[in-house]
Amino acid sequence: MSTTTNRKRIVVIGGSAAGPKAAAKARRLDENAEVTIIQRIPELSMASCGYPYYVGGFFDDRNALLCSSTGVVRDPVYYINAKNIVARTETEALSIDRTNRTVLCRDLRTGETEEVPYDSLILATGALPNIPPVPGNDLEGITTLQTIHDADYLRKIRDDKSIKKAVVIGGGLIGIETCEALNLAGIEMSVVELLPQLLTFLDWEMARLVEMHLGQSVNVFTDNGLAAFLGENGRLVGVKLANGTELPCELAVVAVGVKPNSLLARDAGLEIGSTGGIAVDEYMQTSDPHIYAAGDCVEILHRITGRRVHAPYGDLANLEGRVAGENAVLGNTVTFPGTFGTGICKIFDYAAGTTGLSERTARSSGFEDIITVINASLDKPNFMNGNLLITKLIAERSSGRLLGAQCVGPGSVSKQIAQWAVAIQGGLTVEDLVNSDLPYAPPFSLAIDHFIATAHVMQNKIKGRFKGVPAAEVKSKAESPAPPFLLDVRGPDEFEAMRLGIGETLIPLGALRNRLHELPADKNTEIICFCKISLRGYEAALVLEANGWSNVKVMEGGIMAWPYTRER
Amino acid sequence: MSTTTNRKRIVVIGGSAAGPKAAAKARRLDENAEVTIIQRIPELSMASCGYPYYVGGFFDDRNALLCSSTGVVRDPVYYINAKNIVARTETEALSIDRTNRTVLCRDLRTGETEEVPYDSLILATGALPNIPPVPGNDLEGITTLQTIHDADYLRKIRDDKSIKKAVVIGGGLIGIETCEALNLAGIEMSVVELLPQLLTFLDWEMARLVEMHLGQSVNVFTDNGLAAFLGENGRLVGVKLANGTELPCELAVVAVGVKPNSLLARDAGLEIGSTGGIAVDEYMQTSDPHIYAAGDCVEILHRITGRRVHAPYGDLANLEGRVAGENAVLGNTVTFPGTFGTGICKIFDYAAGTTGLSERTARSSGFEDIITVINASLDKPNFMNGNLLITKLIAERSSGRLLGAQCVGPGSVSKQIAQWAVAIQGGLTVEDLVNSDLPYAPPFSLAIDHFIATAHVMQNKIKGRFKGVPAAEVKSKAESPAPPFLLDVRGPDEFEAMRLGIGETLIPLGALRNRLHELPADKNTEIICFCKISLRGYEAALVLEANGWSNVKVMEGGIMAWPYTRER
Repeated sequence: MSTTTNRKRIVVIGGSAAGPKAAAKARRLDENAEVTIIQRIPELSMASCGYPYYVGGFFDDRNALLCSSTGVVRDPVYYINAKNIVARTETEALSIDRTNRTVLCRDLRTGETEEVPYDSLILATGALPNIPPVPGNDLEGITTLQTIHDADYLRKIRDDKSIKKAVVIGGGLIGIETCEALNLAGIEMSVVELLPQLLTFLDWEMARLVEMHLGQSVNVFTDNGLAAFLGENGRLVGVKLANGTELPCELAVVAVGVKPNSLLARDAGLEIGSTGGIAVDEYMQTSDPHIYAAGDCVEILHRITGRRVHAPYGDLANLEGRVAGENAVLGNTVTFPGTFGTGICKIFDYAAGTTGLSERTARSSGFEDIITVINASLDKPNFMNGNLLITKLIAERSSGRLLGAQCVGPGSVSKQIAQWAVAIQGGLTVEDLVNSDLPYAPPFSLAIDHFIATAHVMQNKIKGRFKGVPAAEVKSKAESPAPPFLLDVRGPDEFEAMRLGIGETLIPLGALRNRLHELPADKNTEIICFCKISLRGYEAALVLEANGWSNVKVMEGGIMAWPYTRER
Repeated sequence: MSTTTNRKRIVVIGGSAAGPKAAAKARRLDENAEVTIIQRIPELSMASCGYPYYVGGFFDDRNALLCSSTGVVRDPVYYINAKNIVARTETEALSIDRTNRTVLCRDLRTGETEEVPYDSLILATGALPNIPPVPGNDLEGITTLQTIHDADYLRKIRDDKSIKKAVVIGGGLIGIETCEALNLAGIEMSVVELLPQLLTFLDWEMARLVEMHLGQSVNVFTDNGLAAFLGENGRLVGVKLANGTELPCELAVVAVGVKPNSLLARDAGLEIGSTGGIAVDEYMQTSDPHIYAAGDCVEILHRITGRRVHAPYGDLANLEGRVAGENAVLGNTVTFPGTFGTGICKIFDYAAGTTGLSERTARSSGFEDIITVINASLDKPNFMNGNLLITKLIAERSSGRLLGAQCVGPGSVSKQIAQWAVAIQGGLTVEDLVNSDLPYAPPFSLAIDHFIATAHVMQNKIKGRFKGVPAAEVKSKAESPAPPFLLDVRGPDEFEAMRLGIGETLIPLGALRNRLHELPADKNTEIICFCKISLRGYEAALVLEANGWSNVKVMEGGIMAWPYTRER
């Protein structure tokens, strides 16, 4: 039975990201409130997105995962002293009595239960990993990388150097980060993905660029499901794939996504959304006005499609927690607008990021009037050791409104995606971005930043000047019975060093105007021009069009964006 | 006398950034046009922003300054072969005959003159360095870093190791880049600035952070003009400052800004703006409809103040050239909207960037309803070797609209400024940005990116929760006869290692609630709280307010943003 006091009682269930953020915000807004965090495990405020980097040895101090920015471990003593928040760790929330506004809790050390009263309750119960329902999934040697316990387990494997081969099941963000971590630990790694591509936040051709880079360090199996875990004496000895391939291994890390941990909410009769996440409105309020929810346990609005999505990302969890904490203590005053689906992943020397919709999700969300382009350039000048960026931009053709952007490569992907994310939030169009005013100096960018250059290419495509075609279309045409004339306009030395080998003819751009007689006499012949990144390819196409060829195209992104094996 | 042909004649005067861009764009839009570049020096398409890095030895191949992205030097042969553009180098444009539409040119090798006819003319005559009108300014050993010839001269000095001491006159962007370059060449450097601060695109307190960093490698003299260059036998031996200080040196680099090189336009009777730049409309068209202009020779619109400004930046030159080139060949079809004043500068291990208005320029432009805040945090987690960022944000108080942002520090300043630039372009408000969806993973950012965190602090300040005061106000109050109670809430070890020493009392945040009796008994006493970055300072202030103190403030940005010498 709850008793009323004049101090508002805020109870938060969950102590990872959204929960502590909500609790801290509530505390800052009401120094007199009683703020309590209920946390099942001993740790609090874990930087769970850092687990792969701890496992991979980017740092060695486990406490770094639990520290404030000033290096203090955020344990219950820290919470009570610095924030006057009671953090009840090793305490499980068993059920919610919404009528009496209490949470039934069990102290996992003593087994004792207690009813904890609340005026406002904030659910931040996180997510649970999916486990493939295949034979052998209970063998020893199978883990996830979801909890700090999992991180401890994998870090010990790294430190013990006890394992030679491991398999990651699932080629998403966590799967790839785990692959890198265990590879850095000296383990021979394979990754298995059911779908035809890694990182489904990317479109296929962009994911292929990641796959080719990852494939330099790790065995990658896409389009190939897991059939079974194979064991001997209760221990994992291999995995069997859907196509029959067996991969011997002593360790398997399952990373096939997570589902909202909404059981407590469901049992309490709160509304659950179609994704399985707790339904919340823009105030992060559940169907019970005394209960808010935030983080990986909820579903939120996608700001482009207007649909509800499960977006289990640490940054959003913090923002949602901030809103839930404020509203829980002050009443509904601030709103959380939802997600643009922004994300990023490190893949050895590459990064891959996205914001907004992919071409695939744009189409499946009902957008039909779309136009896409792929652009490749350096992030800064060659003389400042610039690195390659490859961006795919998706826009609404008629309005030029940005719908999404993906970026892959060794360059500063994070900066590019951040710019696209803010541009999409600002409702900017391609026409706006062709004249953006960005910070330029050679140590930081090209004079025309990759972001602006991508807008330029898209503008040219929208205006019909740049007749770009994606690499997949080029490949399929090249392999057809009547292939187009494929024109590589790079220099001979570049051609010697690297080439597609799809039947292309080499005529360097600088020689093109004098060698037009080498081109098909039939001016209606389809010609596809390209170079390393297709800037010269574009210029070549314009030369040919001006000389009467009527069906000239450019392969977008050039050889750098070719998502297949090259001849060289 | 011009003769008409059916091929449009596009003549471009100037071959650095805007000119070649305009010429290339014109060529791409009209393969049949006659496109000619008139260039006074032998080189074309110089990456002039790269000169300091060539001088500083970031790279050694001079051709890298002149190359296309594929490594081909952009000489006249390249221009004619790859782009079918006639580049007449070592040719000076002497005058424009607007009636007959010709440019009188002189071949500097032969001395011969020729009238070159045009249908559209594009002026890209660049800028000229200001030279201080002081005694001795014609001594040998005084240079600028404006031309590739200057870069060659300074690079030779680096390679010859012939000089021990040098002085840079002017603490702007080029001055600071030159300081770094010559310091890296092993030369003892001093920089002299007439104004009270370096980098006037920053507000004073932000510029001080740059100055303190620069001061670790270079002697910095601010608020101190140049009185004379001192010479012996026609050679520089020192400089004399306004306050009488003499600095012995064998080399002086003058970097006190540039002025538009608009003489040719002025002589031709074209309209010149109040900044001295060629007046152009949004089509980059001058007062003569047959003449366009672009780059450092024009003045353009400032997109926030609506005023005309001289913005001599390489990125804008390219964008302006693109617009001028298209309109020159197709008629007025595309527009250039102007600048947000975005810029960035490398200072050894720091960067300093800006976009939009500074507090100073906002006030001088008539904005009165403004609010500013300074925020400090890492760019990514400590465990991923995060680096500090310090941002000053300027917004319109009533609407929350962003007016400007400045960022300084060893962290990823370029990414931060790029985000602010796009946000300002998108017309976003502080309320929009508190829930931005940015790419988060530990190798790239904090869970709450510095950009979003800065919006959070500003939101709290607008709502009256965060009562921030700038460091300058704290210092002046601390030195007043009745100083406020200054409360440092860091840990004792942090206090031992680093402290302001302005009369502050140390009470760690974690102990504060139990040590309230150590605070002034008079609850109206002004109290100013701070910590390393003032996050704990903010929490402390809330604790004190909740306990009855009525005049509690927080020092913005904490010790990290303190723009003065510290006790430790």
